[in-house]
Amino acid sequence: MNRQWLYARPPAGKIGKDTFQWTETAIPQPRDGEVLVRTRMLSLDPANRAWMMGKTYRDALEPGQVMSGFAVGEVVESRAEGFTRGDIVEGEWGWQDYAALPPRKLTRRTADTPLEMLIGPLSVTGLTAYFGLLDVGRPRPGDTVLVSAAAGAVGSMVGQIAKIAGCRVVGTAGGPDKCDWLVRELGFDAAVDYKAGGVYRALRAVCPDGIDVYFDNTGGPVLDAALGLMNLKGRIACCGNVSQYDVEKPAPGPMAVPGLIVTKRIRMEGFIVMDFYDRRAEAEARLARWIAEGRIKAMVDIIDGLERAPEALIGLFEGNNRGKRAVRV
Amino acid sequence: MNRQWLYARPPAGKIGKDTFQWTETAIPQPRDGEVLVRTRMLSLDPANRAWMMGKTYRDALEPGQVMSGFAVGEVVESRAEGFTRGDIVEGEWGWQDYAALPPRKLTRRTADTPLEMLIGPLSVTGLTAYFGLLDVGRPRPGDTVLVSAAAGAVGSMVGQIAKIAGCRVVGTAGGPDKCDWLVRELGFDAAVDYKAGGVYRALRAVCPDGIDVYFDNTGGPVLDAALGLMNLKGRIACCGNVSQYDVEKPAPGPMAVPGLIVTKRIRMEGFIVMDFYDRRAEAEARLARWIAEGRIKAMVDIIDGLERAPEALIGLFEGNNRGKRAVRV
Repeated sequence: MNRQWLYARPPAGKIGKDTFQWTETAIPQPRDGEVLVRTRMLSLDPANRAWMMGKTYRDALEPGQVMSGFAVGEVVESRAEGFTRGDIVEGEWGWQDYAALPPRKLTRRTADTPLEMLIGPLSVTGLTAYFGLLDVGRPRPGDTVLVSAAAGAVGSMVGQIAKIAGCRVVGTAGGPDKCDWLVRELGFDAAVDYKAGGVYRALRAVCPDGIDVYFDNTGGPVLDAALGLMNLKGRIACCGNVSQYDVEKPAPGPMAVPGLIVTKRIRMEGFIVMDFYDRRAEAEARLARWIAEGRIKAMVDIIDGLERAPEALIGLFEGNNRGKRAVRV
Repeated sequence: MNRQWLYARPPAGKIGKDTFQWTETAIPQPRDGEVLVRTRMLSLDPANRAWMMGKTYRDALEPGQVMSGFAVGEVVESRAEGFTRGDIVEGEWGWQDYAALPPRKLTRRTADTPLEMLIGPLSVTGLTAYFGLLDVGRPRPGDTVLVSAAAGAVGSMVGQIAKIAGCRVVGTAGGPDKCDWLVRELGFDAAVDYKAGGVYRALRAVCPDGIDVYFDNTGGPVLDAALGLMNLKGRIACCGNVSQYDVEKPAPGPMAVPGLIVTKRIRMEGFIVMDFYDRRAEAEARLARWIAEGRIKAMVDIIDGLERAPEALIGLFEGNNRGKRAVRV
């Protein structure tokens, strides 16, 4: 059987278990030119929630579809040239045990790398951190780099890459435990608990020289505070808006836009990791080396069982993960 | 006598005549190393109002100071090397007949260029349009370029430079007369009256291929609408926020920030013309040639008499100017 989670209905406010619907169907038969893939790992990402809000850089999720998501799997049957049984592949076939796909929807991975690394640190998550920080944020040694959702999958890697780049690194996260972890385990210079309130004052206290690069995963109050603390010619790499995805009514936009953008000559620039995939090999090789050398701790937060995918995603918006959250199938 | 307008008090909402105070004092005596300048033209700019709101890229205006502003004048006495009586200079000595200044606060101009050109099209105004559009917006031939406050000093030049750069050009302005003028006289492909309401729909109708570059002079509703119509990898050159300068309570920030910035990979970047002054000669030479060839109509809106400077600035926020507004002294 092919177990699947369907996207059942648009959430009114926060996602819940009724956003999804469990179903079991026959395992698909690959046609000529297709490959049958069995899912091994599912990536849980804030973007999964954003896709429910309408068209973004991809089509909106439609009720009744298999829930979308990035995944790593194993080829169990190949009717396509260049693929054989046992190959490890990645793609976006979503929350199900099996999918029949043409090669253009798959990227081959090396089979000797742990799946925990392939589902995040050496794939979308790590590449997002690498290109977003280095190519969009363009930090210089000595810069102060702020990253929001710093205990999350992307944020935790952004902070560590910024340390390698010679920067002073500050993160925001929810709760004192995560903040301690960022400083003690990941080497952040400071961390601010955004749930404790007074984010602007707290950030000002730990950024005495202002902020040169802000890697924005969240939008919302941390973006507001960061805009007020940006230095002249500061750069904001806009990666996500997670504070506004799982809400009934989005907050107003940042008051400082465009006023402070002008007077401080700030560059605010959005990006999607796929835009940089022509340089994927370079980034993966460096990330793999930094992880092997212990310079990046690639934290993975694995939940076992396809049946638990909805709770794993719901929990992501409650902030109960550290590092990359994935479901092992 | 040295006639002066002082900045009297911070406006509560819109500026009015009581924002300024007339005074007459003795003509200053230049000290050793200084030059005595007599004002010939005063530039009226939306930024003059922004300086009342607090520290920006310069210190805030303080009540009791001579009202700040960019000016062009003539040297009437020189006690500084390199300057002689009759030299034409520009600087920021503000709303007064005379000022004694050191050379580092002055830029020498050529005496054979009409003062009407030196106060705007071949100075701050023209350079702002040139560098902001070409270096920040980076239009490519065939792009659709939108500019707000298109009938104003900077906007009217931005649109004409964008036409020279091979773009399709759309402007927003207040009222049907200005919109007609943009299309008939300045060669814009289309113009939208933002006062008529429905800005998003109106812009969508005249930008069937979306917007590639938005030169933002205004912030506010036109920025909101533009964000919704930007193409992937679109660029927003943030020049000003004039819709929010002369108000009691600023409007909320743009809801689409940072959401659409991410999904459309938009670059939103602020600039101040002074950042580009190392390339001023290049820009001036090209602007002068385009004006001489008739490819740019440099519209200047001259008001006579220092005593009328307050009403000239108040009128700027009522939108009763076309092109560059200046006061002849």
